Amino acid sequence: MTTFSAIYHVTSNPAEIDARAAALALEQSVEMPATAICSDYVRQHTLGQVAQVAALDAQRFRVVLTLQVATTGAEPGQLMNMLFGNCSLQEDVQLVDVDFPAALLREFPGPRFGIAGIRRLLEVPERALTCTALKPQGLSPSELAALCVTFARAGIDVIKDDHGIADQAYAPFAARVRACQRGLNQVARDTGQRACYAPSLSGGPRQLREQLDIVANEGVGMVLVAPMIMGLPVFHELVREHFQVPVLAHPALSGALRIAPPLFYGKLFRLFGADAVIFPNFGGRFSFSRETCHALVHAARMSWGDCASALPVPAGGMSVERVPEMIEAYGLDTMLLIGGGLLSAGDALARRCQEFVTAVAVASTAHV
Amino acid sequence: MTTFSAIYHVTSNPAEIDARAAALALEQSVEMPATAICSDYVRQHTLGQVAQVAALDAQRFRVVLTLQVATTGAEPGQLMNMLFGNCSLQEDVQLVDVDFPAALLREFPGPRFGIAGIRRLLEVPERALTCTALKPQGLSPSELAALCVTFARAGIDVIKDDHGIADQAYAPFAARVRACQRGLNQVARDTGQRACYAPSLSGGPRQLREQLDIVANEGVGMVLVAPMIMGLPVFHELVREHFQVPVLAHPALSGALRIAPPLFYGKLFRLFGADAVIFPNFGGRFSFSRETCHALVHAARMSWGDCASALPVPAGGMSVERVPEMIEAYGLDTMLLIGGGLLSAGDALARRCQEFVTAVAVASTAHV
Repeated sequence: MTTFSAIYHVTSNPAEIDARAAALALEQSVEMPATAICSDYVRQHTLGQVAQVAALDAQRFRVVLTLQVATTGAEPGQLMNMLFGNCSLQEDVQLVDVDFPAALLREFPGPRFGIAGIRRLLEVPERALTCTALKPQGLSPSELAALCVTFARAGIDVIKDDHGIADQAYAPFAARVRACQRGLNQVARDTGQRACYAPSLSGGPRQLREQLDIVANEGVGMVLVAPMIMGLPVFHELVREHFQVPVLAHPALSGALRIAPPLFYGKLFRLFGADAVIFPNFGGRFSFSRETCHALVHAARMSWGDCASALPVPAGGMSVERVPEMIEAYGLDTMLLIGGGLLSAGDALARRCQEFVTAVAVASTAHV
Repeated sequence: MTTFSAIYHVTSNPAEIDARAAALALEQSVEMPATAICSDYVRQHTLGQVAQVAALDAQRFRVVLTLQVATTGAEPGQLMNMLFGNCSLQEDVQLVDVDFPAALLREFPGPRFGIAGIRRLLEVPERALTCTALKPQGLSPSELAALCVTFARAGIDVIKDDHGIADQAYAPFAARVRACQRGLNQVARDTGQRACYAPSLSGGPRQLREQLDIVANEGVGMVLVAPMIMGLPVFHELVREHFQVPVLAHPALSGALRIAPPLFYGKLFRLFGADAVIFPNFGGRFSFSRETCHALVHAARMSWGDCASALPVPAGGMSVERVPEMIEAYGLDTMLLIGGGLLSAGDALARRCQEFVTAVAVASTAHV
């Protein structure tokens, strides 16, 4: 039997932790009392086991469970179910890490492009990459396209929809994507400057298929997806069977899951196929610490079986002034995403965008 | 402009709460500084507003935001994004309730069967309903079918797959569903006793379509879905366009979201189409309080526009002994789910199941 490890932090008093860990192993596998299991096959092939209990402090413990690869059905939804299905409902449990054998890693595609593939597409071999967001929602397709043109002329690499831009009446997907991509095509013809547009996909499978047809027909170079809003199994199926371009993953709706961010965004989003992962940068308006961000970036880029590296995309309350600090912190295999920090320049937007592009180029050269 | 309210509990010190609430209104709508908005249309049609800030205690506040219905695109994923997309990443925020106008409620189907429809299908007009789970995962299709037969002969109304039973090699969906449904058909022919089977759906859209074909071909009467594993937009599309039978919703993976359970399971799962909602009962191995459970049951059953009521299904650490207490607590429009508490009877399983059925009948009669 091939097994994998799921690693939790559990709050408990010391006298009860062994029983609590044993109960967790049952909860995350057979979900019934061990004494009620009549089948030897179940005891050997699906029952979870406690591999380790170690104190972190007086009330918190690291608990490692050994679970069976066969129970995951090689499918992301059921893998998440095994890792954190029912125990998501138990407040004393946090999922902090996993240890997957090669046999399990092979079941998932990982990024199809990853850092190397995105660099090839964007024709940016070495420096850090630049990204910004079309916002606010409520702008019309032509207003969004005008923003696209400004961003592209300044030399920004990737222009993504704000994650709140979906398929609303004021900017329907088809009209918006056509207007934005055609704006970028015009800039490329006029200046040779090629920016990549990443529209936000939304809705159920039927709507997603329609949106992907539009993406293909307009020659769009990337897509933005919030995997926990879309659903991980759909995301994974699209990666395996439908996406033709790299996918940029957004953490919307997933922030409160009590799954450690380095694991969720760095490993699991990557494993399920995210080519680039947006995460809230430290020092902005979100609560991730510098240590969490570094661990996340490491997880996204580390060598991991045959799984390509995912491009880390720090975002949230970033500014042009912080560019050197960010490149110092994360290195060059990073895409810096500044949205509101550019748009707040108002009439000076074009100049602020050029400053962003220049700052990244300068800091990248200095970093080598 | 038609608006809806999103209601949060925010942890803050009193001096900063007004600024924090204003920042939350921006985060959940335009996601940029208000001063950087150049468009009057955006200010009027998409910008969120703070409607109320009220102290709950020295460090916690109730914050009501007014958001625009147009921003939701009438789609569950984007609605969740507006309610809790980015602020899921901000630890000081909990989503506790919503207030939706009729115009927004009309955009979503709600339960197609609901309590009344499930009662009609099961031919149980008045008493509380009974439910159990096939488990543990690792049993073969024929072993699961044998369990089905035992449960059905005892007179249990609904037999659902354990939520961890997906499409694993030891019990593939097609073989398992066929074996279980045929077992139930045989019991119906032999005894007249009709139980309803609810197999667990899993995977991406392609796999789901295959599974729904099997459900239809075998005449299966209900399905089990974990909406947060499947993805809410997929769930909603299946409800609108594909499901022919009632759907029983399971809370796996969703427990840690920092969304109040009465809102998430009682209102939102219901709005998106769950006919019955499983939730962890108080006093079991999960952390929901009695008050939370009562509020959830109220939300699932309350009058709410044209949205049919959803059947509450308390589960988790329940026992036959607790049946009178549960019916006293929740009343008759409830389905009691006992899984491990039956299976732990071992050789006496059939008798324990009969005791469950009898206890529910007796307590239901006593309740009137």
